[in-house]
Amino acid sequence: MAKLNDSDKTSSGFWVTQEAPIEAANPVATPQAEAPDILRCAYMELVVTDLAASREFYVDVLGLYVTEEDEEAIYLRSTEEFIHHNLVLRKGPVAAVAAFSYRVRTPEDLDRAVAFYTELGCEVRRSEQGFVKGIGDSVRVVDPLGFPYEFFYQTDHVERLAWRYDLQKPGELVRLDHFNQVTPDVPRAVRHYQDLGFRVTEDIQDNEGTVYAAWLRRKPTVHDTAATGGDGPRMHHVAFATHEKHNILAICDKLGALRLSDHIERGPGRHGVSNAFYLYLRDPDGHRVEIYTQDYYTGDPDNPVVTWDVHDNQRRDWWGNPVVPSWYTDASLVLDLDGKPQPVVARTDSSEMAVTIGADGFSYTREGDETKGFKLGETL
Amino acid sequence: MAKLNDSDKTSSGFWVTQEAPIEAANPVATPQAEAPDILRCAYMELVVTDLAASREFYVDVLGLYVTEEDEEAIYLRSTEEFIHHNLVLRKGPVAAVAAFSYRVRTPEDLDRAVAFYTELGCEVRRSEQGFVKGIGDSVRVVDPLGFPYEFFYQTDHVERLAWRYDLQKPGELVRLDHFNQVTPDVPRAVRHYQDLGFRVTEDIQDNEGTVYAAWLRRKPTVHDTAATGGDGPRMHHVAFATHEKHNILAICDKLGALRLSDHIERGPGRHGVSNAFYLYLRDPDGHRVEIYTQDYYTGDPDNPVVTWDVHDNQRRDWWGNPVVPSWYTDASLVLDLDGKPQPVVARTDSSEMAVTIGADGFSYTREGDETKGFKLGETL
Amino acid sequence: MAKLNDSDKTSSGFWVTQEAPIEAANPVATPQAEAPDILRCAYMELVVTDLAASREFYVDVLGLYVTEEDEEAIYLRSTEEFIHHNLVLRKGPVAAVAAFSYRVRTPEDLDRAVAFYTELGCEVRRSEQGFVKGIGDSVRVVDPLGFPYEFFYQTDHVERLAWRYDLQKPGELVRLDHFNQVTPDVPRAVRHYQDLGFRVTEDIQDNEGTVYAAWLRRKPTVHDTAATGGDGPRMHHVAFATHEKHNILAICDKLGALRLSDHIERGPGRHGVSNAFYLYLRDPDGHRVEIYTQDYYTGDPDNPVVTWDVHDNQRRDWWGNPVVPSWYTDASLVLDLDGKPQPVVARTDSSEMAVTIGADGFSYTREGDETKGFKLGETL
Amino acid sequence: MAKLNDSDKTSSGFWVTQEAPIEAANPVATPQAEAPDILRCAYMELVVTDLAASREFYVDVLGLYVTEEDEEAIYLRSTEEFIHHNLVLRKGPVAAVAAFSYRVRTPEDLDRAVAFYTELGCEVRRSEQGFVKGIGDSVRVVDPLGFPYEFFYQTDHVERLAWRYDLQKPGELVRLDHFNQVTPDVPRAVRHYQDLGFRVTEDIQDNEGTVYAAWLRRKPTVHDTAATGGDGPRMHHVAFATHEKHNILAICDKLGALRLSDHIERGPGRHGVSNAFYLYLRDPDGHRVEIYTQDYYTGDPDNPVVTWDVHDNQRRDWWGNPVVPSWYTDASLVLDLDGKPQPVVARTDSSEMAVTIGADGFSYTREGDETKGFKLGETL
Repeated sequence: MAKLNDSDKTSSGFWVTQEAPIEAANPVATPQAEAPDILRCAYMELVVTDLAASREFYVDVLGLYVTEEDEEAIYLRSTEEFIHHNLVLRKGPVAAVAAFSYRVRTPEDLDRAVAFYTELGCEVRRSEQGFVKGIGDSVRVVDPLGFPYEFFYQTDHVERLAWRYDLQKPGELVRLDHFNQVTPDVPRAVRHYQDLGFRVTEDIQDNEGTVYAAWLRRKPTVHDTAATGGDGPRMHHVAFATHEKHNILAICDKLGALRLSDHIERGPGRHGVSNAFYLYLRDPDGHRVEIYTQDYYTGDPDNPVVTWDVHDNQRRDWWGNPVVPSWYTDASLVLDLDGKPQPVVARTDSSEMAVTIGADGFSYTREGDETKGFKLGETL
Repeated sequence: MAKLNDSDKTSSGFWVTQEAPIEAANPVATPQAEAPDILRCAYMELVVTDLAASREFYVDVLGLYVTEEDEEAIYLRSTEEFIHHNLVLRKGPVAAVAAFSYRVRTPEDLDRAVAFYTELGCEVRRSEQGFVKGIGDSVRVVDPLGFPYEFFYQTDHVERLAWRYDLQKPGELVRLDHFNQVTPDVPRAVRHYQDLGFRVTEDIQDNEGTVYAAWLRRKPTVHDTAATGGDGPRMHHVAFATHEKHNILAICDKLGALRLSDHIERGPGRHGVSNAFYLYLRDPDGHRVEIYTQDYYTGDPDNPVVTWDVHDNQRRDWWGNPVVPSWYTDASLVLDLDGKPQPVVARTDSSEMAVTIGADGFSYTREGDETKGFKLGETL
Repeated sequence: MAKLNDSDKTSSGFWVTQEAPIEAANPVATPQAEAPDILRCAYMELVVTDLAASREFYVDVLGLYVTEEDEEAIYLRSTEEFIHHNLVLRKGPVAAVAAFSYRVRTPEDLDRAVAFYTELGCEVRRSEQGFVKGIGDSVRVVDPLGFPYEFFYQTDHVERLAWRYDLQKPGELVRLDHFNQVTPDVPRAVRHYQDLGFRVTEDIQDNEGTVYAAWLRRKPTVHDTAATGGDGPRMHHVAFATHEKHNILAICDKLGALRLSDHIERGPGRHGVSNAFYLYLRDPDGHRVEIYTQDYYTGDPDNPVVTWDVHDNQRRDWWGNPVVPSWYTDASLVLDLDGKPQPVVARTDSSEMAVTIGADGFSYTREGDETKGFKLGETL
Repeated sequence: MAKLNDSDKTSSGFWVTQEAPIEAANPVATPQAEAPDILRCAYMELVVTDLAASREFYVDVLGLYVTEEDEEAIYLRSTEEFIHHNLVLRKGPVAAVAAFSYRVRTPEDLDRAVAFYTELGCEVRRSEQGFVKGIGDSVRVVDPLGFPYEFFYQTDHVERLAWRYDLQKPGELVRLDHFNQVTPDVPRAVRHYQDLGFRVTEDIQDNEGTVYAAWLRRKPTVHDTAATGGDGPRMHHVAFATHEKHNILAICDKLGALRLSDHIERGPGRHGVSNAFYLYLRDPDGHRVEIYTQDYYTGDPDNPVVTWDVHDNQRRDWWGNPVVPSWYTDASLVLDLDGKPQPVVARTDSSEMAVTIGADGFSYTREGDETKGFKLGETL
């Protein structure tokens, strides 16, 4: 907010400005090559250590639909999806993410992806048969931030089950909504992803200009991915959308009935950032899954960028409910193209958890009315 | 469905195919000029005969927010909007639509709009100050189908009230969702709007290849506008979105409490087409307003086109509840650029109402199980 | 309303008064014997002609829980029930109601029931083993209005599934709410059921004092049963409650997905009477089932009685949506204690359908603003 | 559970038994006099230190309806109420509860109340004009547990606003649901309130037979009041009901928008006990208010009593979310009949907080799978 004017502050306590070029101390080069035209986040490939346990969680509890499965992998989709899958669960020795996969507009965008990342000196592999079932010609790279990114256009079409209300559960997951990546240097990540064609919709900063997190979109929602400041590259979460808020509450109720409530890590609650209603779960391997509903349209080029003060106690939860420490500290490893875990580099900027809670941090409900304790009677 | 294969029929009773070139008997020419890049339907300018009565309906009952108003016009927006308005109510002698207004991606798209429509021989006017408050440089045309279309990029930004829950009502309208246009020749309209850059998402046909209606989108929802077969050019409805279904029910409850339930024309119900939950109201001038929630993402280039059989009794209402005749027959006049009502041309193709109800029509709940009466005990 | 004062009219358009003694032209005698202390409507025994088809409807579609079943009968309960069942489906030659069954406070209330109905000259049978599984000592009678009533206290306890969210469906039915009986002379019925201990909560009248329907309760909701004017004795419907309105919408959505939407007869909508949200279905034999949620507490002795004008178009549907004629005319036969259908006696008072629609009837949305057509554009 | 059989354990992890006589070490005597017949909890009289601040909270934020107000007191009611009020806010020097007021069935029950408490040696006062506006002949006592209890029958009737949807807010409070009292010796309290005619619906115990809390009802919901173990007599909370869960979420959203989120103490969440959806707020004086929806019918005499293990981490929150310590420790003072705060007596039995969290406590999600930390990643 150092750079933000009082006149840009809204009646809701955050700032809105137009997206501006990002300065990064150690920027990734901007390629001459044109970026591939990304449509949306399309699927995540997750390595899980116990395929049966993961199936129970994602299929029996969360109710994702199995498009195809074998002894090594399960291909899952959400209710309204017509491409082959939104999630691949693959059996492996170490719980991690094998790919953040984006769909591009045309087959030719794969050539653009190859050129773009080759110019950046990244490892690039292309497979005409695809790296997973149901997906054709694909490009996988380790991006400059260390994340395994995939791009594809060709995919098998499957039936969109949106009208199959006879199959629905109270906690129906209807769409893949977004990814969230942990990375040490948020401005560096944002700058690079802008080069890849992403637009910033919201971020969290402090008065000194430290950026703690930023949200980035291709499709006109608040995000297709986000950069969360922390030791990385790691995967913070993958998010599925429901239609209504009660669907999210129903997932909690069901976990309680199954005596699996310890899979609930944080929420349900209302986000400040994105204005969405949310819930965070942890799967049997500890991979974090968000359930999310009702953010807003962001598709206009001059869509206002929302900036939150890191000390605003309603930024992460609009109701001021505390963020559990694990939510800040835990995340999943990501793999290189040979399936080996990427080394994790420590964040050197201030951590959001440190500046908001504990001895050296503070949060406020009303700016200028700074209180250590979060809320009445709370003693975390 | 004459052209549709049984193998394309889904388990929900409709067909899915890829969008194909449309044949029209009397097509509008395809311009050489590039079409403007439309972002989304942005606002409608409605002429109303009693501004105070319309204000009561749209502001006091429906709860739209007043951005600005004077004795001649009221500028209204929905909760999540950041552009100046989504609806202009302008006092005038004849209830009608003065403009279907679309936002384009760049200022340069206005030049493209001028070239595109000039080549088509349409009347084209451009105003650097804009035709209404809050909107800058704009192009207005009477399009080849007789509709007053507007294109603009520049607009005043206003506060997005998405986080202002202190202002919200039980029936909160959060976004403008779409327009719907009545036109005699649906394939002719679809072909032209494809030239303008729209994509087809769903349509209603019969075995003989008659097309009764089609849905067209720019933003990745089911539609920004639709072509409904009937005497035209006329405006069928303008639609606003809520977050949840109970918000729509709350509007009905409030109309009952105000003893204004006769403003409810049809619904609430679940659409077959679009899978959205809906309600149709009539404003004090008889302009039709839809309240709508929860359709699906359509942004991929190969998004499957859904085709419904006109005789499928669940196409318009998934629950098989009857469509009231006025919904088929009534619509609002549209104006030319001088403010005079456009003449209405009769549809010559079969009418959807005639082929589905009454002596010569039929509808089925289960294909092959054709019954005249809509549903158990109904005697409409 | 002939007898109602303007000062009793509420801002919502109905009247409230204190419950008063009912005058009936041909009253049932008031017994000297004390009435049994009824707790609540507890279950209905329905005779169905195709047990498999009924099972599919009540278990597979509506999701009631099977407590027990054999080749002759299925015993079903709702989610929050702890007694053996709320519905018995029994195979038989003629679709009809075998029993409206009420639970009483103590075993001794069965003796009171015997004395009460014996004094009235009714046929009375008692079975220590009960007439159906899961229910012990019971009394069955043909009441003075011709309805087969049952009273019991002893019942097997089963697990209340309220916390078993893992079993729940989007349209979960959580409680049996009420019965509804069709009878020619409503004041005569009301007077008799007051003698049996019921309290009136709402009714529909006209200026001449004709009573078209009345709602009667033991538990503190709007009703355990209702008397609907028409040819009788017949059963109008049995009603189950959901927690929320979206649960009712989900039932409609599911029926659509199963291509069973012709089971929807009326609604969903908001009642004027009771203020509840509702839906009426017809089962495979045509028995009517209501799904109902969110009426109000009525347990105080001076609870205001709500009286609706029969011409108020919002009395049956607060949104003014039309009542389909079958809803007025169709109802299920009821059986005597030997299983033979009771003869049906025609109503001689005015019929609600005749006075509100058609050539001789009228309805208003705003009193004094009488319009024949129900609502804008409607031409029923 | 020492006394509970394994065969009584349900598939949801709690026990059900029939209500049994309670043993208390130091019981209150059972009067010979008949207890008054209580209908329901009717209103609470709260002393607040800043009437304007309290009005803002209860009227502007929570939306209760003002029946009447003057400089000393504000009389508030919920949407569906027809008696004069459900809450009195009275200006005073010390924030406290002046009365827990119950409505009785008949005027004669006031004589019974006088006799009942006189026999118990309690201070008893009767006022024919009532102690507050809108209420007639009333009896106030300091009950044997030190709580100021009131009984009344006569009250002014006001309009039930249930149909006035034009007045409703997204977080509409429709009914007063219950009180909750803090008292050192729970079995002693339960035994006494059973003498007063209350029935137990649920409780929390441990293996040693210590009772931590119990829920007691007159109307057929889970409670009209509850006894929570702790230093007392104090008032734990007063609870209002909404129709649906989203109404409760809307209250949180509104508090966020008003930057008053620090009024949220705990929740929203799903209770284990009662199965209701809940939220706890603190008013400007720190009085705790619960918002509550969707418990179950309890009106049968043999309604199963639900017993929860104090170590079951889902008993207080079905999703296993932690109870904030203030919720266990904070409560409001109660006044004697002269308006002086009652002295608070310390609980000597184990405290629920101590046995479930911290060094000497433990909680489990799955019995036999005892873990100190509540849930994945939590470090409270």
